[in-house]
Amino acid sequence: MKPQINRRQFIKFLSAGAVSLTLPGCASFNAGVANEKKPNFIIIFCDDMGYGDLACYGHPTIRTPNLDKMAAEGQKWTNFYVGASVCTPSRAALLTGRLPIRSGMCSDKRRVLFPDSAGGLPKSEVTIAEALKDEGYATACVGKWHLGHLPQYLPTNNGFDSYFGIPYSNDMDRVGGEGRQAFLEPKTEYFNVPLMRDEEIIERPADQNTIIKRYTEEAVKFVRKSKNKPFFLYLAHNLPHVPLFVSQKFRDKSLRGLYGDVIEEIDYGVGQILSTLRREGLAENTFVVFTSDNGPWLIFNEHGGSAGLLREGKGCTFEGGMREPCIMWWPGKIKPAVVNDMGSTMDIYTTILTLAGANVPTDRVVDGLDLSPALFGTGPSPRKNMFYYRGAKLYAARKGPYKAHFITKLAYGKGKDEYHDPPLLYNLEHDPSEKYDISKDNPEVIIEIRKELALHLAGLKLGEDQLAKRIEKK
Amino acid sequence: MKPQINRRQFIKFLSAGAVSLTLPGCASFNAGVANEKKPNFIIIFCDDMGYGDLACYGHPTIRTPNLDKMAAEGQKWTNFYVGASVCTPSRAALLTGRLPIRSGMCSDKRRVLFPDSAGGLPKSEVTIAEALKDEGYATACVGKWHLGHLPQYLPTNNGFDSYFGIPYSNDMDRVGGEGRQAFLEPKTEYFNVPLMRDEEIIERPADQNTIIKRYTEEAVKFVRKSKNKPFFLYLAHNLPHVPLFVSQKFRDKSLRGLYGDVIEEIDYGVGQILSTLRREGLAENTFVVFTSDNGPWLIFNEHGGSAGLLREGKGCTFEGGMREPCIMWWPGKIKPAVVNDMGSTMDIYTTILTLAGANVPTDRVVDGLDLSPALFGTGPSPRKNMFYYRGAKLYAARKGPYKAHFITKLAYGKGKDEYHDPPLLYNLEHDPSEKYDISKDNPEVIIEIRKELALHLAGLKLGEDQLAKRIEKK
Repeated sequence: MKPQINRRQFIKFLSAGAVSLTLPGCASFNAGVANEKKPNFIIIFCDDMGYGDLACYGHPTIRTPNLDKMAAEGQKWTNFYVGASVCTPSRAALLTGRLPIRSGMCSDKRRVLFPDSAGGLPKSEVTIAEALKDEGYATACVGKWHLGHLPQYLPTNNGFDSYFGIPYSNDMDRVGGEGRQAFLEPKTEYFNVPLMRDEEIIERPADQNTIIKRYTEEAVKFVRKSKNKPFFLYLAHNLPHVPLFVSQKFRDKSLRGLYGDVIEEIDYGVGQILSTLRREGLAENTFVVFTSDNGPWLIFNEHGGSAGLLREGKGCTFEGGMREPCIMWWPGKIKPAVVNDMGSTMDIYTTILTLAGANVPTDRVVDGLDLSPALFGTGPSPRKNMFYYRGAKLYAARKGPYKAHFITKLAYGKGKDEYHDPPLLYNLEHDPSEKYDISKDNPEVIIEIRKELALHLAGLKLGEDQLAKRIEKK
Repeated sequence: MKPQINRRQFIKFLSAGAVSLTLPGCASFNAGVANEKKPNFIIIFCDDMGYGDLACYGHPTIRTPNLDKMAAEGQKWTNFYVGASVCTPSRAALLTGRLPIRSGMCSDKRRVLFPDSAGGLPKSEVTIAEALKDEGYATACVGKWHLGHLPQYLPTNNGFDSYFGIPYSNDMDRVGGEGRQAFLEPKTEYFNVPLMRDEEIIERPADQNTIIKRYTEEAVKFVRKSKNKPFFLYLAHNLPHVPLFVSQKFRDKSLRGLYGDVIEEIDYGVGQILSTLRREGLAENTFVVFTSDNGPWLIFNEHGGSAGLLREGKGCTFEGGMREPCIMWWPGKIKPAVVNDMGSTMDIYTTILTLAGANVPTDRVVDGLDLSPALFGTGPSPRKNMFYYRGAKLYAARKGPYKAHFITKLAYGKGKDEYHDPPLLYNLEHDPSEKYDISKDNPEVIIEIRKELALHLAGLKLGEDQLAKRIEKK
């Protein structure tokens, strides 16, 4: 992590009181934070869970009582985006607050990192964990990493005090099973993925049947032992990414089948974490965010999730690929609501850093915005646009309710890029399912979106492609 | 209404205590009801609202805080069916507890009643209102009727003390506007529908801009004046059926556009009714059900609603046509829950009659089942199957999680019936969107469904076709 100007100290010098300041070119900042006990942060991140996969987002047979309660006590966001429609770039966006195109964590050559990848999150990027560590936080990463598995890229070299998890996707390192059946009737020994403690492999193949349970236990343990220090926990489940695994207690319990079993075990784990916070007297000082990395993996039929009323799923730039359930919870602090404003995982970065009184980097473009106004009910979300990349190419852009698709492509299969001029135009507020192209009647809207896009592209510096790098075979 | 054996009096004679009795061939019956104050009943019925159109069922931009609260305090049903995918037969099913094929309220010639129709709900049918009137209830119908508009078929001749509403669909009697534009840019004067008070036309064309507001006001007035007598209110909104109208207060307020404005006005009205119940001290003795008659009218694009993750909409036998949001509310009585069991509007009939200690007719087949176990948390819903008719023809059947489509047809357009042998088979619990046909791997399930179907068809007596009858032109 590069040394930075310590803006927090500068602001403390300027103002000792609880005054909201906005410095030119800086994120909005609450200078009072430094005088209070710093809040704790927990991000719970799923893998390939769709917009429609929770009861409170409309699924008719998956039971998620803990997440439903979390949403009722907190905020249920309905226009919440991830930074990319596949794992690696989406995770980079969350942890750096920046579109993956800037960090080089997306590529036209490979969509994610693989076991033979030699790249990873560049050292120059400032992760949430790094920024919070500078503020005296205890930091833990539990679960899927997928931002590089060579030693220099692991969580413990990216601001986390500890790591426990599988460092990439749970379907990698396949050594058994037949083709598609290996995924649909999976056995844990088919996938020779490592389970790591910090920088050591402690189990291989990881027993994925118990992985949700063990991640939850690690998370609860970390929360319990971190009472005397502010903490940041990043819990990134490897599931419900196909192949699906679930512990004995939840197997064959869900009406929705194995996929539902998995979601219901994750839901149970969320309940465990929130009740631990309550029991330990930490709930009112802990901001918890629950979301997922991208939409459902539809090619696996019932083993994949549902994007609900949204179009398409994982891997593409229709809404089903990049809009996710997002529940934010902080009892007594954030205003319970259904929030229809836009937000993104990149905003979680900036919001958390701001709430912690940490520095939001000013020596680079940070795409994240501070969601505090929407969280605390003092105003709307500052997010008014969204850029949809696939690999290193921009396919679509949203401004306010309008989304223009300049290029479309189905998530998987042999389809080619389809170019649209004029772009396909949808009003996502009226037509969340992207069914009714209104480009012909709204040329002025397209002009506005093109202007927004020109501004975005003018400031764009491409990071060095990290995903194309491979370990050289000897 | 035909005279019937008064089973309630017979049961009272047998048992004075609060004993649950089940007589052979009768619906389960709580004999204790007669000793308590009888509960009030309110059914709020929408027109063409889809499964995905409420915030608590996953819509991302329609705001329904009152219905969300109602669902949180009560039960949100996620496998709840109507008796048909279009207006007239669906309403007949609700009010008689019987599949429309039995009452003759469906037809292969016309799908609903029109202003030139001469038929209506046969006198021999026993409506909820008739059954409750016999038990001393005050009864009111407010809103759309659509079960016959000749005098003998009106609500006041079907057990309702009073009627205030438009007797059929709000898009009928069209006298102005050009083709499709008349529906998409509607004016109230284009549709010369009558507004009736009891059996008199009091306004024509009805001012539809204020119709949700006026229906709500009528409903609130009725609740207020019915404090000394048990009551049944049937409030059937004409909206969000296209053409869409909304009162000034809600116009241009919803992110979702005009369709959202309409849903949000209905939601506000629900809030008014529930708060009236609370204010008048009636909430804990009033069972309120909110649902809709069929799925969204998709041919009208943004003017139609959304079936969420369900396939297709109004007019067809895919789930989007016949599965609806259903919220049940009775503070302190029913157990708050998300209910994944099956239920139907026909069950509302039997449940209400049973709760009121009224007679469920035994001289005919009643399809409705008593949902009390699921409502009061004593057991599962008794409903295990569902038959999907289109007109007078059976297209599909569900048994447990499995649904077999013997015939499919798109809702509108030039498509013909497509026959399937083996039928298309879906597991609706795993695959609510009806995407993955599993017929080849599950021949035994198809045999089971065919058996169920044979039983159903063996007992089936077709009612005389009421929808084919037309007023003779002189």
